[in-house]
Amino acid sequence: MKTTIGFIGLGNMGTPIAKNLLASGYHLQVYNRTLSKIDELGSEGVTKCQSPAEAAASVQFVISMLSDDEVLRESTTGDGGILKTLQPNAVHISMSTISPDTAEELAKLHQQAGSSYLAAPVFGRPEAAAARKLWICISGDEKTKTNARPILDCLGQAVIDFGDKTGGANVVKIAGNFMIMASMEMMAEAYTLAEKNGLDRVQVSEFFGSTLFAAPIFQNYGKLIANKQYQPVGFKSKLGYKDARLAFKLSQTSEMPMPTVNTVHNRLLTAVAKGWGETDWVEGVSRGVSDDAGL
Amino acid sequence: MKTTIGFIGLGNMGTPIAKNLLASGYHLQVYNRTLSKIDELGSEGVTKCQSPAEAAASVQFVISMLSDDEVLRESTTGDGGILKTLQPNAVHISMSTISPDTAEELAKLHQQAGSSYLAAPVFGRPEAAAARKLWICISGDEKTKTNARPILDCLGQAVIDFGDKTGGANVVKIAGNFMIMASMEMMAEAYTLAEKNGLDRVQVSEFFGSTLFAAPIFQNYGKLIANKQYQPVGFKSKLGYKDARLAFKLSQTSEMPMPTVNTVHNRLLTAVAKGWGETDWVEGVSRGVSDDAGL
Amino acid sequence: MKTTIGFIGLGNMGTPIAKNLLASGYHLQVYNRTLSKIDELGSEGVTKCQSPAEAAASVQFVISMLSDDEVLRESTTGDGGILKTLQPNAVHISMSTISPDTAEELAKLHQQAGSSYLAAPVFGRPEAAAARKLWICISGDEKTKTNARPILDCLGQAVIDFGDKTGGANVVKIAGNFMIMASMEMMAEAYTLAEKNGLDRVQVSEFFGSTLFAAPIFQNYGKLIANKQYQPVGFKSKLGYKDARLAFKLSQTSEMPMPTVNTVHNRLLTAVAKGWGETDWVEGVSRGVSDDAGL
Amino acid sequence: MKTTIGFIGLGNMGTPIAKNLLASGYHLQVYNRTLSKIDELGSEGVTKCQSPAEAAASVQFVISMLSDDEVLRESTTGDGGILKTLQPNAVHISMSTISPDTAEELAKLHQQAGSSYLAAPVFGRPEAAAARKLWICISGDEKTKTNARPILDCLGQAVIDFGDKTGGANVVKIAGNFMIMASMEMMAEAYTLAEKNGLDRVQVSEFFGSTLFAAPIFQNYGKLIANKQYQPVGFKSKLGYKDARLAFKLSQTSEMPMPTVNTVHNRLLTAVAKGWGETDWVEGVSRGVSDDAGL
Repeated sequence: MKTTIGFIGLGNMGTPIAKNLLASGYHLQVYNRTLSKIDELGSEGVTKCQSPAEAAASVQFVISMLSDDEVLRESTTGDGGILKTLQPNAVHISMSTISPDTAEELAKLHQQAGSSYLAAPVFGRPEAAAARKLWICISGDEKTKTNARPILDCLGQAVIDFGDKTGGANVVKIAGNFMIMASMEMMAEAYTLAEKNGLDRVQVSEFFGSTLFAAPIFQNYGKLIANKQYQPVGFKSKLGYKDARLAFKLSQTSEMPMPTVNTVHNRLLTAVAKGWGETDWVEGVSRGVSDDAGL
Repeated sequence: MKTTIGFIGLGNMGTPIAKNLLASGYHLQVYNRTLSKIDELGSEGVTKCQSPAEAAASVQFVISMLSDDEVLRESTTGDGGILKTLQPNAVHISMSTISPDTAEELAKLHQQAGSSYLAAPVFGRPEAAAARKLWICISGDEKTKTNARPILDCLGQAVIDFGDKTGGANVVKIAGNFMIMASMEMMAEAYTLAEKNGLDRVQVSEFFGSTLFAAPIFQNYGKLIANKQYQPVGFKSKLGYKDARLAFKLSQTSEMPMPTVNTVHNRLLTAVAKGWGETDWVEGVSRGVSDDAGL
Repeated sequence: MKTTIGFIGLGNMGTPIAKNLLASGYHLQVYNRTLSKIDELGSEGVTKCQSPAEAAASVQFVISMLSDDEVLRESTTGDGGILKTLQPNAVHISMSTISPDTAEELAKLHQQAGSSYLAAPVFGRPEAAAARKLWICISGDEKTKTNARPILDCLGQAVIDFGDKTGGANVVKIAGNFMIMASMEMMAEAYTLAEKNGLDRVQVSEFFGSTLFAAPIFQNYGKLIANKQYQPVGFKSKLGYKDARLAFKLSQTSEMPMPTVNTVHNRLLTAVAKGWGETDWVEGVSRGVSDDAGL
Repeated sequence: MKTTIGFIGLGNMGTPIAKNLLASGYHLQVYNRTLSKIDELGSEGVTKCQSPAEAAASVQFVISMLSDDEVLRESTTGDGGILKTLQPNAVHISMSTISPDTAEELAKLHQQAGSSYLAAPVFGRPEAAAARKLWICISGDEKTKTNARPILDCLGQAVIDFGDKTGGANVVKIAGNFMIMASMEMMAEAYTLAEKNGLDRVQVSEFFGSTLFAAPIFQNYGKLIANKQYQPVGFKSKLGYKDARLAFKLSQTSEMPMPTVNTVHNRLLTAVAKGWGETDWVEGVSRGVSDDAGL
């Protein structure tokens, strides 16, 4: 008989992850703010819950994939939160993109309750989640990492261990998202420079994406930026801005100036200020660069 | 019998290029400011010249690979310059990293003299030049490009045609160098953030370099930055600063603000101001980030 | 018989303000974290209290002048906080430099308790406070402002009313501190530019301070910056950084990019990162500019 | 009998200066690119010239007030330029806002010709020029400064001597214009922050302009910025951008990063890119800040 897992958060990322768990034979106790979304998972192996606490009851593992620090904190420590029911020795696998400070704070609360918290943020778009191709970054104590490993292995193409400090994996996630945003900004500046000088943005993008910058980020985002292809909306500018804020905040708590973080933070803040918060973040960045260039 | 080519400039890049031409059977009329460097090419097929004009006399092609706009302009239009002797219908293949404005200006002078100017800047380090692995970006009129093609084909792994506007390839070269600098800055910020949070810079660099950022720039420079390995000096900070100035200048003439250009320009200007001009540009960028972070 | 006022916070600013109130005949119930500091006020008219709650008991007015949002929040809402004892209809005059969000939040709590909160941050250094030369910015409801007016009038040279939105005066205070920091940065850049070009920093500073920029900020800070006179420490770099963070945070919640805020924020963050947090903020800014210039 | 002075350049600043010289009894040999503008000076004491050379012939002093380095260089060294006719021992009083490098270069050419070059850039708007209220910054050799003094004294309220290095006064002029632009940017950010938080921009501006920032720059520009009063066009954004470029260039040749110069440079470059080059620079800056804020 397969394990039952608590699962909280059926957003763009949570849904394909939950489906993969079901396909692998796990049973899920699922909570989502909009309860009707749970129906998308089908009824096979799914128990619908009315709160995070209900989803976390009587299981060895609960997975959360939520939008930000506040929602995660509320879902964990609030009235109907995970910690209300989580058994001693159970593990909370926390996959959301949050600050390391929140991770450390929650880890401490779990420890006090006798349970464990595992930071496990991921890289990859929803398609990658569906294809079990996520890169899963983890950090925390050895025993917790070992226990959670079989579950993580069935969700991604690699699980990378960033040590025993709880928030370590969160730092890596924030650093990576920063690098993605900085790459978008860099490409938008370079390709708009090319455009302003009479060159073909697409040709320039293809050249770099197939030579010095032959990496997924530069190929996939590069194509969208070069073509100014801003539909469909995959990841919203306002969520990108949230991540830029996490990076900025981390530069403050880490006591180090990060001028490139400033640039992407301001780019996305401007997008939000101009009312482009609901656009794809590729548009938020690329249109901002074009706009300032008078295009 | 093989063609004789004029060749001007035996720096880190010019020397391996000249050697490859000799190996391919071309004869070279060579000029270099420090004449003794010409001896490194051996005597087989080499004619030592006292001026660019002498090197450009009686040939169909002259190649120049020089340090900056000023040196190229002087070597072309000065008293002993290429234009003093270049035959009508001959082609000047200009491989230096210079501004598109200088390229346009020189192209006009060649045209007036009945000869042709071909912008042909390259991407690749000296090792790539030696291995005939350069990416050669060209722009200019069709006939000139066709004529020069056989020579270029024996120097690089690809020749990419960026259209008929003379300075087009120079814009691509400047944009590319900007993207390299911006990538270095981005990595230095991200890996120092990781370090400040107790993570292993090298592990973080290897993770990104093998996943989302699996491209040569992020692998090669990433390794140097993560390890703070600043020796040997490949490309000097002061030359990197020269390239940052070219990018900044181009953002001005193109009338577009480029905040990321500002960041890398200031980073390298700071390096020069602090007396680090002779260090490798990896050090100029990475040490600057560490320094500001109090490390 | 004169009114008794609760008074909380005997820092650089609070102490001269408290002394002026005593000199004007008010009785004070005083609390300070380091209790011994209360002795500096003398015993005449002073009641020493063990908590903010004790200081706020049985009075019509309580004044707080504290270091930051967190300390004010704790002193107001904590176990021994002001709200534990503050009478209905009494007024809390809050002079600290804090975010408008905290002001709004505290105002609501006072309202719920039947008392009033008045935002009353001030401009002026400790000497100005001692000389009753402060500029006091206020915002809040009319009745509260009218009630507090006699007390405020005896502390400053002007009381400026910025309307009825609680946090309004806090926005003005943050904007003003930002303008001071930006002026310091601007002067440090300009005078260092002069120095690097062989001019006399002091002469240049005196010229601008007596002509186009003939205002206190440019004269007083200008003299310190031009002379690189960093002693004695008046206002610490780490406190300046706190204010820069308030400005940055406000640019976020106001949804507007403020590039000059970025500059001063990074300047002071760098000072803190380099271990200069305890220096005067003039040093934090000016030495940072010199340092980057290789001086 | 009064001296005859050569005068070149009847722009917004040159015209009132020329009128004052005439009113003081000097005779003028005047050249202006648009010759018809010379008629505005009346015929009394005015000789109309066809070239700078003609204006500079047979006089002890020639004054130039031109738009930029290129125009001054052409007017001085070109075919019909000043140096073609300027007598040995005569003095060229150069009042334009130009780079110190151009000043040094021209000073050398004058010296070779036996004449002298005096850097004498000014602070003040056209109204100040008309009222003889300019601040005139000078630098150069003692004898030249002494000789020119009587003329300068009748044009401004003060002549400030910045030493014997030719370009010194030009550095001060560029530093001052930078400080003006930075002040405009700072005010636009602060007052827009106030606006976004429901405050009255004008009240906030008046408060700062009458207290901490009670200086002409903050009062005059502050009023325009607070009221978003962008008409009439006094000084064009594209000319402001030219000055920002001078400041940026000087930061490069001085080898020092100046982040605030970056900010104002980008602000005005954006204005030019967006097609606002002909607007007043108050609009170029202030509208840019509002625009990014989504207002």
